[in-house]
Amino acid sequence: MTAEPLFTLTAGPVQPSAETIRSLATPVYDQFDPYFLELYEDTTENLRIAMGVSSAPVIMHGEAVLGLEAAAASLIARDDVVLNLASGVYGKGYGYWADRYCRELLEIEVPYNEVIEPAAVEAMFVERPDIAVVAVVHSETPSGTLNPVGDIAAICDKNGALLIVDAVSSFGAVEVDFEGWPADLVVVGPQKALGGPPGLSLLYVSEDAWAKIDANPDAPTASMLSISDWRNAHKAEVKFPFTPSTVEIYALNSTVDQYLREGPEAAWTRHDRVAAATRAGIKGLGLELWPVNEAICSPALTAFKLPDGSSGADVRQHCREHYGVMISGGYGELTDSLLRIGHMGPTAHPIFSAVSVAAVGQTLLDLGVEVDVGSGVAAAMARVAEPAA
Amino acid sequence: MTAEPLFTLTAGPVQPSAETIRSLATPVYDQFDPYFLELYEDTTENLRIAMGVSSAPVIMHGEAVLGLEAAAASLIARDDVVLNLASGVYGKGYGYWADRYCRELLEIEVPYNEVIEPAAVEAMFVERPDIAVVAVVHSETPSGTLNPVGDIAAICDKNGALLIVDAVSSFGAVEVDFEGWPADLVVVGPQKALGGPPGLSLLYVSEDAWAKIDANPDAPTASMLSISDWRNAHKAEVKFPFTPSTVEIYALNSTVDQYLREGPEAAWTRHDRVAAATRAGIKGLGLELWPVNEAICSPALTAFKLPDGSSGADVRQHCREHYGVMISGGYGELTDSLLRIGHMGPTAHPIFSAVSVAAVGQTLLDLGVEVDVGSGVAAAMARVAEPAA
Amino acid sequence: MTAEPLFTLTAGPVQPSAETIRSLATPVYDQFDPYFLELYEDTTENLRIAMGVSSAPVIMHGEAVLGLEAAAASLIARDDVVLNLASGVYGKGYGYWADRYCRELLEIEVPYNEVIEPAAVEAMFVERPDIAVVAVVHSETPSGTLNPVGDIAAICDKNGALLIVDAVSSFGAVEVDFEGWPADLVVVGPQKALGGPPGLSLLYVSEDAWAKIDANPDAPTASMLSISDWRNAHKAEVKFPFTPSTVEIYALNSTVDQYLREGPEAAWTRHDRVAAATRAGIKGLGLELWPVNEAICSPALTAFKLPDGSSGADVRQHCREHYGVMISGGYGELTDSLLRIGHMGPTAHPIFSAVSVAAVGQTLLDLGVEVDVGSGVAAAMARVAEPAA
Amino acid sequence: MTAEPLFTLTAGPVQPSAETIRSLATPVYDQFDPYFLELYEDTTENLRIAMGVSSAPVIMHGEAVLGLEAAAASLIARDDVVLNLASGVYGKGYGYWADRYCRELLEIEVPYNEVIEPAAVEAMFVERPDIAVVAVVHSETPSGTLNPVGDIAAICDKNGALLIVDAVSSFGAVEVDFEGWPADLVVVGPQKALGGPPGLSLLYVSEDAWAKIDANPDAPTASMLSISDWRNAHKAEVKFPFTPSTVEIYALNSTVDQYLREGPEAAWTRHDRVAAATRAGIKGLGLELWPVNEAICSPALTAFKLPDGSSGADVRQHCREHYGVMISGGYGELTDSLLRIGHMGPTAHPIFSAVSVAAVGQTLLDLGVEVDVGSGVAAAMARVAEPAA
Repeated sequence: MTAEPLFTLTAGPVQPSAETIRSLATPVYDQFDPYFLELYEDTTENLRIAMGVSSAPVIMHGEAVLGLEAAAASLIARDDVVLNLASGVYGKGYGYWADRYCRELLEIEVPYNEVIEPAAVEAMFVERPDIAVVAVVHSETPSGTLNPVGDIAAICDKNGALLIVDAVSSFGAVEVDFEGWPADLVVVGPQKALGGPPGLSLLYVSEDAWAKIDANPDAPTASMLSISDWRNAHKAEVKFPFTPSTVEIYALNSTVDQYLREGPEAAWTRHDRVAAATRAGIKGLGLELWPVNEAICSPALTAFKLPDGSSGADVRQHCREHYGVMISGGYGELTDSLLRIGHMGPTAHPIFSAVSVAAVGQTLLDLGVEVDVGSGVAAAMARVAEPAA
Repeated sequence: MTAEPLFTLTAGPVQPSAETIRSLATPVYDQFDPYFLELYEDTTENLRIAMGVSSAPVIMHGEAVLGLEAAAASLIARDDVVLNLASGVYGKGYGYWADRYCRELLEIEVPYNEVIEPAAVEAMFVERPDIAVVAVVHSETPSGTLNPVGDIAAICDKNGALLIVDAVSSFGAVEVDFEGWPADLVVVGPQKALGGPPGLSLLYVSEDAWAKIDANPDAPTASMLSISDWRNAHKAEVKFPFTPSTVEIYALNSTVDQYLREGPEAAWTRHDRVAAATRAGIKGLGLELWPVNEAICSPALTAFKLPDGSSGADVRQHCREHYGVMISGGYGELTDSLLRIGHMGPTAHPIFSAVSVAAVGQTLLDLGVEVDVGSGVAAAMARVAEPAA
Repeated sequence: MTAEPLFTLTAGPVQPSAETIRSLATPVYDQFDPYFLELYEDTTENLRIAMGVSSAPVIMHGEAVLGLEAAAASLIARDDVVLNLASGVYGKGYGYWADRYCRELLEIEVPYNEVIEPAAVEAMFVERPDIAVVAVVHSETPSGTLNPVGDIAAICDKNGALLIVDAVSSFGAVEVDFEGWPADLVVVGPQKALGGPPGLSLLYVSEDAWAKIDANPDAPTASMLSISDWRNAHKAEVKFPFTPSTVEIYALNSTVDQYLREGPEAAWTRHDRVAAATRAGIKGLGLELWPVNEAICSPALTAFKLPDGSSGADVRQHCREHYGVMISGGYGELTDSLLRIGHMGPTAHPIFSAVSVAAVGQTLLDLGVEVDVGSGVAAAMARVAEPAA
Repeated sequence: MTAEPLFTLTAGPVQPSAETIRSLATPVYDQFDPYFLELYEDTTENLRIAMGVSSAPVIMHGEAVLGLEAAAASLIARDDVVLNLASGVYGKGYGYWADRYCRELLEIEVPYNEVIEPAAVEAMFVERPDIAVVAVVHSETPSGTLNPVGDIAAICDKNGALLIVDAVSSFGAVEVDFEGWPADLVVVGPQKALGGPPGLSLLYVSEDAWAKIDANPDAPTASMLSISDWRNAHKAEVKFPFTPSTVEIYALNSTVDQYLREGPEAAWTRHDRVAAATRAGIKGLGLELWPVNEAICSPALTAFKLPDGSSGADVRQHCREHYGVMISGGYGELTDSLLRIGHMGPTAHPIFSAVSVAAVGQTLLDLGVEVDVGSGVAAAMARVAEPAA
């Protein structure tokens, strides 16, 4: 049997905190038990506060892809023109789901080391004022980039289109301004910056989005894919459509509580600092970041180019086997282009940049790539140092 | 805040064992980590052995209703005639899903305190030899009854129809003879007699079923509802379609391991004994079982008629509040007809019949119903007593 | 391998709550880590509040016998006359320790199904006004009796003697009035009514006791047996004499927190109710309580006479093997006289009396002893029933 | 409330593995429960195998100092001449305990950055052939040094003296050759290289040592300090002298099992590698090791000189506060001389040297000490690199 990893520094799911792990070791109670009903209601309320929104979010009982598929199935009506914004593998992939439900799919696609230009979205609306729904990924996990969703949202709002946002790996790592942007259907995952296990989708649904879903005869009901079924399920007096995933709720309760105790701003700063340190470390090693510039880098993970002549699979395997450190490779079309270091949730502390940079650096050295491990780690640490009091 | 219950003796989810709870307190590792890939593959293989089948079962990452809905969506083609067998709320409900996908839905419905007569199925096939798919619930949880699936399966087999079985609350409590019956698509839940948390669907799919799914152009793919997407996902070298629910896999690994260590026959005997004791206890109290006769009672739970003049909700609340014991009420149309005591997994030990009978009995006494608590518990205990060595 | 028990209803250690078990699954941190130092200090302060005393209690890092031995070693000076009060095996045993350290040991011994008469203590002081230290057990666990420590304490106080109290199994189950009685050195165990694991001794030390210890040249220092070494160790700025038992502190922190959230009075009432129900159940079975009358029964556990012709070991083994219920036998000289059912901490809820009475009753029936299981359980339940709202 | 540390890299107790933490989350069962009795017996047997000895070790229920004090109290008779070997704070301290029980205490003391010369021991025996007992510390934790116990043991053996060894922080990190050396009374701690929680003492007692204890009228019995009381307590049919620390046994069972699964040699190699890497890193930073040469360094931890002008307390606090890394300072007389990095048990993996060196290095830089973080980490990593396959 392969040994457990010493460090999981991947694009997620991430290493949970001791407190989160402890929360999972709670007996399963009946879904109708008053204790569980209260816990579910409290968890939803705390999640609402953590999201900074005015109405109850919807918890769906499957990994974040459930929420993303359900969003397409529910919000997109058969006569809709949908604009999909593809700046990476996930964004591109969302178009396939959207296409399943809409009349016409438009797409703006940019190279996967860049982000969407708001001006291009603006221009598309001029050309096609009939766009009803726009879909965008906030933190494009496979690329390590962060789309300017705020600017895009303002354009959608002005043009009367509803906006679906995949904020799975951004929520908790950077501000997601649900109602301020505004966005209409935002999908968050507990297994990234919140540091929970994968197994739930957390949805913000705007009033406009609810109205459109209610009016959509094809929106799933009495189905795993239904968002509506769960709209009021957090209320103790409303029955669950089916048995919720008990232990996932325990973990969500715990991670949201930890997030609120720390404070969102503090969590964002923490992700910012470790991201900056990791980027400094990667550059210090002599490697190149994947995104075209640092301004568009996601604070949740750092993607860097695979050095010439090396195999991503070999690097990852060596790093895992010799140093116990698990990192992520490229995904989909980017498999042979880049490697990724996650710094989300409990590993979003600057000191972890020393671990990832040292392990990746030494691995590359071991495999014959010329990198400067010392410069890498020193640069990472220098970036996070704070003056002594 | 309401206190946690002392005993969860409901229709499920059930109280996990200490070992299962402990298994949940494991760090989340990346889905591509070699440790996790091995664990996933091992878990699938152990589940295969536990099911006693020859090919790998499919783990779907959502509560058992996901598997049930996916079964309908995948196996039922748009030109199919489907026969739905409804001996309770769950069986009846499956018809609604089946109807969504088929050309014509036939149904045999019996009173919800009875079970399906194989002869009626046989007769239906005579009348309608074009039936392509039959759906039946093994342990009808809302009624506490057990359908004679073996006999039904043989009839389907003879008539060339594929059989979908909801074995969610029967697997682990009584023999489910997947390949011997034979059945074609059987959905099992980890949160009943296996004593795990809810959050997964465990599917047996026969070769015939795979062939039909492969040939069905409407069978979901690239979707949460897809069974096919996960067909080979347990193999370490095959990528997961999306992130599996890590901690649910930890728990499944543990519960299947416990089940195999105990041995299926021993587990079935244990459920049989506690079920017999509970029925004896309920009758000893002076109450009536809900099923028309004991021969059709499910070993997973005991349903009994709500005494005249009492409210199920009041009984459950009083029992939970005063004695810390959570039981289940009627479900759907049976809400005002019965109450249910679960004895599945870790609570499927005879001594728990003393708890449920004493708590229910005293609750009824407290609420003014004439029952004999002493006779009830004495009858339950007498039923389980074994002669001293 | 023997299966784990389903119910631990013994004289202790007892079955912890899910919350306590969860608290144990916390990483071990360095003893000088600021997080741990704060936790230790907070835990001591909460324990002080739970004890209702004005100065910090002392946590010693070994099971309660450590505290008891240390109390004798520290408080008893070589010229002291000590009066030991023996109403049971534990009380009698304390005399052996006391004798090791004092000049002369006096003893009042009563049959082990009775308790100490305060008048006898009063009389002894008249005869021997030179008594310096008195030792008494509050809840005499091997007998299931509760000594009238309040009355005894008042006599000691009037006569200028210091009082050592073994409150290991009473604290949390019934009021221990440390400063009001007053007592001078009281040893509490976390593994009884608090529902924690065994591994610590919790000591209340009065100002008079500290003065006597400080003046005692033989009081251990730089030793596992030293109380003084730990006097100020709870303060973050004071070094621990040696490494504290980290996880025991986690559990203590949790159990004290649970005790304070419930409220001491509520906890005492809970123990009272289950004790009364268990006694009613035992008598309902047709068995006899061990203590000479109910007024002297301990609320922490119920001792009853072993029926003629039966073997305590056989009863316990059968009950554990067939019903999964672990109870306690007699201890020391009482081994062949009685059996004991514990109802402490998380199992001090009335419903557990149904479990113990049903399991013990049926076991005796199985072994050929005529008891009435139904009457037993019905009597237990009737005793705890509360009128419906 | 102070946040939990990210890394505990101290002289112990150390960070347990996820498996060990999980083992703690097990319900407490009665000490006489057959399940617990078997577990206790199995744990003792596995510990015997892990120690590589021929008779059952003794588990004492208090942190390792209990075993050390008990060893002195039990093995040293009032007429004994004892030779104490002091190469550090712990060795020196043991003399105080030894002195409490013997007729005459001899001592060889060397500077605390050196180790005991076997020749000096040999010479002492020539001078004082009446030495009955010798005491030595194997891994002198406060100094980070490793005494040549094998050579010393051979001399003692030749001269007919019994040897007490403090192997608390060496067992599991390096070979302890109990019977081969031979040693007579060796105390091991579960909270160092085994990675368990503190709370037990694990004792190897030779036949000669048992004979001497049996013959010693002052050896404690019926006492927390008694070794004899526990000699046979691991046997299911023998009663425990008092309640064992249940959860500590769970953890011991788990850590010994992990140690055996890994294999002692593999564990020793792992400690060797991380120790070498950490020393390389410390030197790479430009700092000096505390021990006079690397050959005498303990594989369990690395001690290095506090740079001129810096305060150990400030370094530790800054490192903990800014980087989340807890390290140890000097102990006792060495408080202002050195700092210590532990690499024991689950943190005895080479990659942790990158964490400690980066954190310590950057901390010193932050505090104005000139060190080269890059050279330090690069040297550490280079030391542990293994050629790619």
